[in-house]
Amino acid sequence: MTLDLAIRGGTIATASDVFRADVGIREGRIVEIAEGVGAARETLDAAGRLVLPGGIDSHVHISQPSGAGIRMADDFESGTRSALMGGNTTVLPFCLQGKGQSLREALQGYHALAEGQCYTDHSFHLIVSDATPSVLGQELPALVADGYTSFKVFMTYEDLRLNDAEILATMDTARRTGALVMVHCENEDAIRYLVGQHEARGDVAPRAHATTRPVAVEREATHRAVSLAEVVDVPVVIVHVSNGAALSEIRAARARGRRVVAETCPQYLVLTAADLEGMDWEGAKFVCSPPPRDAAEQVACWTGLETGDFDLFSSDHCPFRYDDAEGKLNPRGRTSFRHVPNGIPGVETRLPILFSEGVTKGRIDLSRFVALTATNHARIYGLERKGSIAIGMDADIAIWNPEARRTIRHADLHDGADYTPYEGLEVVGWPEDVILGGRLMVRGGVLVGQKGAGTYRPRVLSSLARVA
Amino acid sequence: MTLDLAIRGGTIATASDVFRADVGIREGRIVEIAEGVGAARETLDAAGRLVLPGGIDSHVHISQPSGAGIRMADDFESGTRSALMGGNTTVLPFCLQGKGQSLREALQGYHALAEGQCYTDHSFHLIVSDATPSVLGQELPALVADGYTSFKVFMTYEDLRLNDAEILATMDTARRTGALVMVHCENEDAIRYLVGQHEARGDVAPRAHATTRPVAVEREATHRAVSLAEVVDVPVVIVHVSNGAALSEIRAARARGRRVVAETCPQYLVLTAADLEGMDWEGAKFVCSPPPRDAAEQVACWTGLETGDFDLFSSDHCPFRYDDAEGKLNPRGRTSFRHVPNGIPGVETRLPILFSEGVTKGRIDLSRFVALTATNHARIYGLERKGSIAIGMDADIAIWNPEARRTIRHADLHDGADYTPYEGLEVVGWPEDVILGGRLMVRGGVLVGQKGAGTYRPRVLSSLARVA
Amino acid sequence: MTLDLAIRGGTIATASDVFRADVGIREGRIVEIAEGVGAARETLDAAGRLVLPGGIDSHVHISQPSGAGIRMADDFESGTRSALMGGNTTVLPFCLQGKGQSLREALQGYHALAEGQCYTDHSFHLIVSDATPSVLGQELPALVADGYTSFKVFMTYEDLRLNDAEILATMDTARRTGALVMVHCENEDAIRYLVGQHEARGDVAPRAHATTRPVAVEREATHRAVSLAEVVDVPVVIVHVSNGAALSEIRAARARGRRVVAETCPQYLVLTAADLEGMDWEGAKFVCSPPPRDAAEQVACWTGLETGDFDLFSSDHCPFRYDDAEGKLNPRGRTSFRHVPNGIPGVETRLPILFSEGVTKGRIDLSRFVALTATNHARIYGLERKGSIAIGMDADIAIWNPEARRTIRHADLHDGADYTPYEGLEVVGWPEDVILGGRLMVRGGVLVGQKGAGTYRPRVLSSLARVA
Amino acid sequence: MTLDLAIRGGTIATASDVFRADVGIREGRIVEIAEGVGAARETLDAAGRLVLPGGIDSHVHISQPSGAGIRMADDFESGTRSALMGGNTTVLPFCLQGKGQSLREALQGYHALAEGQCYTDHSFHLIVSDATPSVLGQELPALVADGYTSFKVFMTYEDLRLNDAEILATMDTARRTGALVMVHCENEDAIRYLVGQHEARGDVAPRAHATTRPVAVEREATHRAVSLAEVVDVPVVIVHVSNGAALSEIRAARARGRRVVAETCPQYLVLTAADLEGMDWEGAKFVCSPPPRDAAEQVACWTGLETGDFDLFSSDHCPFRYDDAEGKLNPRGRTSFRHVPNGIPGVETRLPILFSEGVTKGRIDLSRFVALTATNHARIYGLERKGSIAIGMDADIAIWNPEARRTIRHADLHDGADYTPYEGLEVVGWPEDVILGGRLMVRGGVLVGQKGAGTYRPRVLSSLARVA
Repeated sequence: MTLDLAIRGGTIATASDVFRADVGIREGRIVEIAEGVGAARETLDAAGRLVLPGGIDSHVHISQPSGAGIRMADDFESGTRSALMGGNTTVLPFCLQGKGQSLREALQGYHALAEGQCYTDHSFHLIVSDATPSVLGQELPALVADGYTSFKVFMTYEDLRLNDAEILATMDTARRTGALVMVHCENEDAIRYLVGQHEARGDVAPRAHATTRPVAVEREATHRAVSLAEVVDVPVVIVHVSNGAALSEIRAARARGRRVVAETCPQYLVLTAADLEGMDWEGAKFVCSPPPRDAAEQVACWTGLETGDFDLFSSDHCPFRYDDAEGKLNPRGRTSFRHVPNGIPGVETRLPILFSEGVTKGRIDLSRFVALTATNHARIYGLERKGSIAIGMDADIAIWNPEARRTIRHADLHDGADYTPYEGLEVVGWPEDVILGGRLMVRGGVLVGQKGAGTYRPRVLSSLARVA
Repeated sequence: MTLDLAIRGGTIATASDVFRADVGIREGRIVEIAEGVGAARETLDAAGRLVLPGGIDSHVHISQPSGAGIRMADDFESGTRSALMGGNTTVLPFCLQGKGQSLREALQGYHALAEGQCYTDHSFHLIVSDATPSVLGQELPALVADGYTSFKVFMTYEDLRLNDAEILATMDTARRTGALVMVHCENEDAIRYLVGQHEARGDVAPRAHATTRPVAVEREATHRAVSLAEVVDVPVVIVHVSNGAALSEIRAARARGRRVVAETCPQYLVLTAADLEGMDWEGAKFVCSPPPRDAAEQVACWTGLETGDFDLFSSDHCPFRYDDAEGKLNPRGRTSFRHVPNGIPGVETRLPILFSEGVTKGRIDLSRFVALTATNHARIYGLERKGSIAIGMDADIAIWNPEARRTIRHADLHDGADYTPYEGLEVVGWPEDVILGGRLMVRGGVLVGQKGAGTYRPRVLSSLARVA
Repeated sequence: MTLDLAIRGGTIATASDVFRADVGIREGRIVEIAEGVGAARETLDAAGRLVLPGGIDSHVHISQPSGAGIRMADDFESGTRSALMGGNTTVLPFCLQGKGQSLREALQGYHALAEGQCYTDHSFHLIVSDATPSVLGQELPALVADGYTSFKVFMTYEDLRLNDAEILATMDTARRTGALVMVHCENEDAIRYLVGQHEARGDVAPRAHATTRPVAVEREATHRAVSLAEVVDVPVVIVHVSNGAALSEIRAARARGRRVVAETCPQYLVLTAADLEGMDWEGAKFVCSPPPRDAAEQVACWTGLETGDFDLFSSDHCPFRYDDAEGKLNPRGRTSFRHVPNGIPGVETRLPILFSEGVTKGRIDLSRFVALTATNHARIYGLERKGSIAIGMDADIAIWNPEARRTIRHADLHDGADYTPYEGLEVVGWPEDVILGGRLMVRGGVLVGQKGAGTYRPRVLSSLARVA
Repeated sequence: MTLDLAIRGGTIATASDVFRADVGIREGRIVEIAEGVGAARETLDAAGRLVLPGGIDSHVHISQPSGAGIRMADDFESGTRSALMGGNTTVLPFCLQGKGQSLREALQGYHALAEGQCYTDHSFHLIVSDATPSVLGQELPALVADGYTSFKVFMTYEDLRLNDAEILATMDTARRTGALVMVHCENEDAIRYLVGQHEARGDVAPRAHATTRPVAVEREATHRAVSLAEVVDVPVVIVHVSNGAALSEIRAARARGRRVVAETCPQYLVLTAADLEGMDWEGAKFVCSPPPRDAAEQVACWTGLETGDFDLFSSDHCPFRYDDAEGKLNPRGRTSFRHVPNGIPGVETRLPILFSEGVTKGRIDLSRFVALTATNHARIYGLERKGSIAIGMDADIAIWNPEARRTIRHADLHDGADYTPYEGLEVVGWPEDVILGGRLMVRGGVLVGQKGAGTYRPRVLSSLARVA
């Protein structure tokens, strides 16, 4: 049978192997990998380039309510467009449950916003912010069965945090259903204590964001999260680990036999708390939680990537405009770091940053790059037929030019924010062509696909739920 | 000037030295230590015996309300009598704040109960169970100034636990006043989760007390407590550490430069969770929190005593009668471990057990015994003129026969309970004579002193508050 | 072009992916992986079965001199036959340099023994036992260039051990050439001290083999090996890790940023030191170094496999006959554990044991099984075109029946020993068909291939040498 | 009976207590401690001052052969004079065994040099550099019986180092005799490897002394030393620990139940490797082993002192003149760091530095100061009747003015070197009067005693040998 699309002459990389071969695609899936594949209606020449699985960014925030007067800078159109242009073919945004709201209802809202708007495939993690018996006992099990197989809980943010009893109950639901729990680990009470100390002495510039959320606050919450998971006996994902001390807690838990997944993000590799000290409130551009740390912690995070202690590399894309009354510099945000919305854009720059700083600079090899940016996300979050280049997989592919040099400029990016925290960073390696489900969406760095090409994907249980 | 009392011919041990000398006492204090002291109205022959500082038990519960229908087995008369007979001259019971109650008011109650009843000196730790702004902001600072220089907070027990914000606020009061915070480290929510799991399967015998409070639950809370103290930047006391994992958290905190005091108790050296499995609900006799662990954790606790990782050895005396409708076997206690009151008697057996298992068996030397049972308690909790044999100190002295052999039998003890968890344990070494403030209270193992000889002692700030 | 061989209908597993596809083979290599591959001269039906990369056992000893009067039980014919029958297609035996011998000369001997005798492909690690300047300065660099890209050094065995200066010098040669150093970590002096203690009290039965090589001896040497590698700044392989303490040293080194590869073996998962206590000197069957430990250390090793702390799972096949005057029960071996030759057979049972105990029992998934038994060996030791199922790879494939039940009996194995330490172990999962370079060597568990089909393979540099 | 000397009005500090009392001395010993002691032939007014045990410096080198053409700057006269003026009353220099020399013979030499020359009491540790069977089997046991109860072994220095077998054998002698083994932990082979690397690139200035002896080299040897002691089952002293990584190894060993004594020195608190970078070869003044590290390691050492992880604070006084053909700038020393003799003077400044930086600055309290500088040395090394102020003790006392301000200048010191590495350091607190065996040796900072007042003291077994 004639192929729909053939990618010829490239070097394929999976989490396991790097090899020269052609890829044959039919009906949106990879059907043949061979030294030479057969005739195709369309051919893409990948000679001299890398054929990688499309990136999966399992940690992005899109169109999420962010408090009165604040608006997230990306909707599904701009957020997934930006993701796509950065080499991604799937994103996993969060569905945030409002207090008193049913998750099913919340999901309807997100689906409505996403429907027909997306440039990438997508699925939703469920943020449990109101862990009532009916949510835990009825709604979540039904949602897991429907393909929403991961829950996120917060230990920080006054409106979102669950207490330990609620986290345990949520984890117990995960235990019974096979869902996977993700935890944002920072001790809210400790942060509030420190915020009080800072405010009492008038220390309210953006740099206080870092000093009110010191490493100890994240380390404590990390140890607590892995311990609660130990009590319930479930695997757990620790998201956006920013430093070596928290990572040590994860290593220690694993040495006790616990299944703990660890994620880190670009901001912990190339930013530091010093960036929060920018003049004229420019530091607000770098306000995210946990905050960037220092050079020694950057090294610790790189070590974690090199040794395999980190399983996931995500963006934690959470975009707000900077110079905007609904963004970083909202009226109250100009007066205190406390009112600067937390989060930075990054879905488009995640892959180039890791490729350039990691692969090009020789810290990690291509297979680990693929694992960290695609394969592990698919396995850990139950995205069947995603995250690799193998027979039967969705033809979600990014073709990289490993020698392309680019300087990151927000002017060249495609999100809804008005800045990038990585402005001016030079990178080597860029995803030139992106294929989604066999359809060419980006060609030579130019968007050629259509909005709505990306579809919703229900998920199976995590591989961690399946292996004891 | 003629001495009131001379102790002649004994071997004195302090936390620093062991040496032969006489002790001269006048007006209740030690005024002379010499090869031969001068004339005295009364002489005690200590030849062949050890002259040690009277024990200080800084962790005892007396006359403390324990829930509807439950009565603690000791009042101040029986509790301090039992302490005295076991070689102690000072105890530090707790003053428990009721919900909505002022601590000052609570103290009045305890003082009223203790006044004129005591056989040992005593002072009170304050249990903060209702951390209101006025308690933290006004009452506690005033109480610290009045000599109540230590606060205890609980991370467990539904009625007592403080949440992290309350613990931080209490620690902040300690920071401002120089008081010392003690923490009972077990994660209440995790325990309740496990209790739920156990009850759901009908696993309600006393042994469930141990399995619902596993090591992970104590380890988590210990890491959290030292982290909260790190955030506030105060020293902290971790009481009744039962296992090596919690102790490791303390060691790690110290290696980060934190000042952490660690306490363990006899029950973690000579009992195990297997004791909770006694037939006919006999296991209820061993229900205390944290629960005794296993043989490997006993070794870990011994190692901590030998290496100096533990600073304090206390009893956590918390007596309830066993066969009593207001005790362990209260009507509901017979139906589920949950309703068995937590706590075991031990104030009288603490010193002989450590002496016999520790000193006699060669695990620790006499100076460490003195440090662990007297000197460190005085320094850490600000008991001036207590805890050692030196000039100017209160003449609080226990004279031990290091070769006396005894089998522990509740019939021989002096507390208000009807059993001892150490029944049948053979010990070598016993405090034969006990002197309180220069007054002979016990002679040859026989009570000769009067009720009311023991008085209340206000305290200065902890030595930890005084060294940076 | 017509394929030489098509494997149809199976489930392929790589270190990254598990998927249904056919495999097309031509001229000994995999040229096509597809939903349906084209016409082939020969077809193998893999329906219901797993198509895995042939196992690579990177730690085997064959025809290695073992001291006066002792003979290794396998030559290249029997050793590789046994390997093949156990699902392997490549083995890496050691070329042992004799004292005063050039490695080139030693290699000629091994090549001569292997030439035309092998059922699997093979390559040689170089055991450096005489680290002279000319060996390190001239011979090794030339040998690395010729494809012998890994060196092994011993910290134990009187005849083989190098001192620290020699290890450093060897590592320095590795640094300059890109070769990879493997270390057998046990402190010889400590062992000899303990042997002396045991002999002095007549404690010479096989069980003394374990008590003279306690965990501390391996932990010490492991810490030393990773430290020497840190000083020279080279990656290092720690072979046959037997316990959690040694593994902790490796984890700590990695957290310091060191590149350390860790290997474990079946004997540390399913045997214990208790096996050495067999009556009638039966314990001699289990004498290998490091010795099997206890149940807690087995758990620690499993945890290391589950978490990914172990990169390699090898057999350390080192076969001696038991009831044989040149084997375990040689005349002196009957008198003292010291003279029992060290080593046990295992090349044929390695894969079934890990499959059954690991995959079937749900401890690890198929992809990790493939990584641990094939892919990682190829990458770490520079075996190009080996260790995976991908285009361009050698067609080295084992087809497993995941439901085949077997009881391990030496009578069914194919090595030259007269026993297996795993006699009676029941396993689920067995490699029924084995293909080497596109040639069917084993069909339905029956040897159908010819001696000499396996060839020598020079190697490229380790992937660790290539990533910084 | 009339006292020989009364010290009146001071504040006494022991490792346990701080209290106001007089001290009565007769026949060289403390016979009375009281609120007011009786009549005395001589009285010293200590009002407003601290009465501390005379310092014991258990790690000094005096008149030790140091290689051809090099001469140690202190003999027993100048070395003990300097010690005395710095508040010490006992020193423990080393008796170095030459290769082929009997230790008995070596001792005769040291005794001959010391006899009649000393201003302080003294005893000798034995450096075992030639661990022959007769030395280990006959000579050492006899010497232990004679009061030489501690051995030192070196893991570095080509002429002194023992290999692991020799260390084990020496430790085994210690096990049989109750002697205590001290270990200098640096891996000689690793240092030599790094020296080779440095020399090859012409990097031979004094700063190379630090980079050829990095932390990893000390950490490795520390782990090895505690492991060898674990194999033999003896306590062990790790001398001059310079950094947190080595200290972590010690903590880990203790957590495994091992008895490990840890020592640090002033150079690791107030010097750094940057001091080795002085212009014009001035860095040679700071060449000692292990080398000073960096600010973070200073903090780690302070933490170890504060937490009690360090037991001993010694000087490692090892004096060489700087501008001297037999000293630091010997002809070869001017050409390469390798030939700069290792060691710095410090016996006179040890106590003031710790008092000022530790006690005055609030890092440690007086009792810990006394323990670290006197009491622990006496207990650990078996100096009976030394190291404290208690009845029966030798009247070895230093009277400190805690408010005296001094700037350290070599011009004011009393050793035989021509510089101090602490030139210019300002300290608060100084020992004004020093009493040795009841005899006033220093009064108001002026030497008033006679050479020869200090005598040799045989020692009993370490307290570590006596407690299991």
